[in-house]
Amino acid sequence: METQVPLPPTSHPRVVIIGGGFGGLTLARKLCGQNFQVVLFDRNNFHTFQPLLYQVATGGLEPDSIAYPLRKIFQDYPNVNFRLGEVIKLDVAAKTILTSIGLVRYDYLVLATGSTNNFFGMQEVEKFSMPLKSISEALDMRSLILQNLEAAINFPENREACLNFVIVGGGPTGVELAGALGEFKRHIVPSDYPELKDLPLNIYLLEGDTKVLGSMSEVASRKAKQFLEKLGVKLLLEKRLTNYNGYEVTLSDGTIIPAKTLIWSAGVKGQLLEGIPADSISRSRIITDVYNRIKGLDDVFAIGDVAGMITEKTPMGFPMVAPVAIQQAELLAKNLVQLSEEKPLKPFNYVDKGSMATVGRNKAVVDLHRLKFQGAIAWFAWMFVHLMSLVGFRNRIVVFINWVWNYFSYDRAIRLIVRPFRGR
Amino acid sequence: METQVPLPPTSHPRVVIIGGGFGGLTLARKLCGQNFQVVLFDRNNFHTFQPLLYQVATGGLEPDSIAYPLRKIFQDYPNVNFRLGEVIKLDVAAKTILTSIGLVRYDYLVLATGSTNNFFGMQEVEKFSMPLKSISEALDMRSLILQNLEAAINFPENREACLNFVIVGGGPTGVELAGALGEFKRHIVPSDYPELKDLPLNIYLLEGDTKVLGSMSEVASRKAKQFLEKLGVKLLLEKRLTNYNGYEVTLSDGTIIPAKTLIWSAGVKGQLLEGIPADSISRSRIITDVYNRIKGLDDVFAIGDVAGMITEKTPMGFPMVAPVAIQQAELLAKNLVQLSEEKPLKPFNYVDKGSMATVGRNKAVVDLHRLKFQGAIAWFAWMFVHLMSLVGFRNRIVVFINWVWNYFSYDRAIRLIVRPFRGR
Repeated sequence: METQVPLPPTSHPRVVIIGGGFGGLTLARKLCGQNFQVVLFDRNNFHTFQPLLYQVATGGLEPDSIAYPLRKIFQDYPNVNFRLGEVIKLDVAAKTILTSIGLVRYDYLVLATGSTNNFFGMQEVEKFSMPLKSISEALDMRSLILQNLEAAINFPENREACLNFVIVGGGPTGVELAGALGEFKRHIVPSDYPELKDLPLNIYLLEGDTKVLGSMSEVASRKAKQFLEKLGVKLLLEKRLTNYNGYEVTLSDGTIIPAKTLIWSAGVKGQLLEGIPADSISRSRIITDVYNRIKGLDDVFAIGDVAGMITEKTPMGFPMVAPVAIQQAELLAKNLVQLSEEKPLKPFNYVDKGSMATVGRNKAVVDLHRLKFQGAIAWFAWMFVHLMSLVGFRNRIVVFINWVWNYFSYDRAIRLIVRPFRGR
Repeated sequence: METQVPLPPTSHPRVVIIGGGFGGLTLARKLCGQNFQVVLFDRNNFHTFQPLLYQVATGGLEPDSIAYPLRKIFQDYPNVNFRLGEVIKLDVAAKTILTSIGLVRYDYLVLATGSTNNFFGMQEVEKFSMPLKSISEALDMRSLILQNLEAAINFPENREACLNFVIVGGGPTGVELAGALGEFKRHIVPSDYPELKDLPLNIYLLEGDTKVLGSMSEVASRKAKQFLEKLGVKLLLEKRLTNYNGYEVTLSDGTIIPAKTLIWSAGVKGQLLEGIPADSISRSRIITDVYNRIKGLDDVFAIGDVAGMITEKTPMGFPMVAPVAIQQAELLAKNLVQLSEEKPLKPFNYVDKGSMATVGRNKAVVDLHRLKFQGAIAWFAWMFVHLMSLVGFRNRIVVFINWVWNYFSYDRAIRLIVRPFRGR
């Protein structure tokens, strides 16, 4: 028999939340001081502000500015218990979860596990490409990019593959990474890597659709394309990846690009767990009703990326973005109180405030309800919104200072290779 | 036959420097713009400011504040070429070095490889203890400390070993780490780890001598001891480690301390390379004359920790500290010019400006020539000297802001576990 995870005794119902991302963190914060014992599980001891991961990957920020220790958030709320561990499986009949640190019984269970990379079954691509969903992946990517620049200097025979950087997926992450690499190429390479100054360094952005930022407006897509081209990014539109073996990228039209770096931002899927009833899973997401309740279960909920709330307006579920997760968490906090008081639940109603993406210095695109704008003002708006969304005052200061520094110096100062050298 | 490392053509003599620490970096900077082609090798692409590594290990600083990209330093000096690689061996007869990226011929060779941990042959200790000589070791140590606090919460049966932190060696690194852990215990654990609030968390500092900071003055040692005791550090003086198997520390008097964390700061030795003539090695250092020239070789030099410059006043060589390395590098830069102009060399003369160590907030000790002081003023002096010694304006700003933040918040904000979870 598995041992129980030690938790303080309580007379309140226990809410177990799996995942400390935007959804899980918001829910736990809303339940601070309420009549629940909250147990928050995460495999990291910190919350990651994913929208800025690409800046960690490209040497603009260190992890401390976009990660925040989860325990610190709940310092003053003894009803919230953080536990570091991996969840292995659920047992919805016994109302328990099995984790790497033992068994936990729940009264209410909330799956806020987010999303993971979707390689659509391409195993070689999964093995050799670089994804960007976590702090450690961002640090690995930063090291790989810098290692390939060094290798281009030291091994002339591999130069072409070392200097080709291929990004798959023209969504916000792909566009932001391509733009950041474009600026790195323009401002850092000529001064720091004089040996490479006269050699071609190519940044390719591969997208199956006819445009980048397909989820945004026509004008945003068009402007983002122009911004990318200004930064020297080579757009490969209406092209798909068919394989990558670690040194050659093969496209659907037969083109082969030698490349040591392939960055994967072309697809995500819900991060599922063993024990979720099979009939409530569709397209790698968990089907929920408008109260985020999992089909057929009264006390298990799913929120955010992993939740597929199918409504008339959203036959494919809501988009996998932070605002949906946050708003679902806010509503669920209220509904859990309603539920415990045997009052009726309120249905979810998504308020879409718009979306934005940045390509580089003075180059961003913003879509609000009626207002759409691009360029420098959009860039400042993007920075302001992201600064304000960060968790914790310290993180805002650190990011702000880094951005001011980067703005005036044209620098990406954190060019540190911290993972082992992988040779040529 | 090994391939040559690609380097620009030159008519100047080539100085190859192995190691970008205090010695190697100072020498390369002094040779900027001189009539030499300089090739600087390091296994990292950055210089590490080792005196502040312990703050990275204890969550006070991120790597970007104490590491500086080597290429950035030499941006404006085309005569200095940085190469990322490991040196495998020297061939002093052929005047070449073999590296992980190929072969390099030299006219002058400078070994500035620094020091590495000395475990005095204790293989189990080497395997299970945590050293602190590099950025990645500092990040690993930070993760291990935090992982053990989580494990103490989750696995009551291992609680004692998880909450005992044993530091071996009462030199500056050991004292600084013990003090930082003492402050972590006092200011962070009660709020962030309420589950551990009422449990004993022990920080042991083990030292074979009768006092800590043995290389400093009587009063500095005595005061440091008082400061450590104030912070709740348990001093184990006149005791030696005999073994550590990963969960139990055995001392020379038979005492056994269960501990999952053993930090090793009890000894270093010169970082030697294959191909150094055996008769020029003594006590793991390379014997040099007063010009830092290796015995019997006209064109090979050693500076800093790895150099054992034996003089009448220094029968054991100079102490393995940064000022010696820096001063030897400064002189060698001049002597290389003298040598290339066939002028006489100047002998080394060490100017000892004194030493300092910090235990915690308002708790430091400073020994100058005649002046010795301790406490708050010593602490501010320590901070000022370390800030000014950092490479690069950005790093000084980042460290300064972090210190101001930590001062007012009593926080060590960077409590991020970034290496894989090692279970119980």
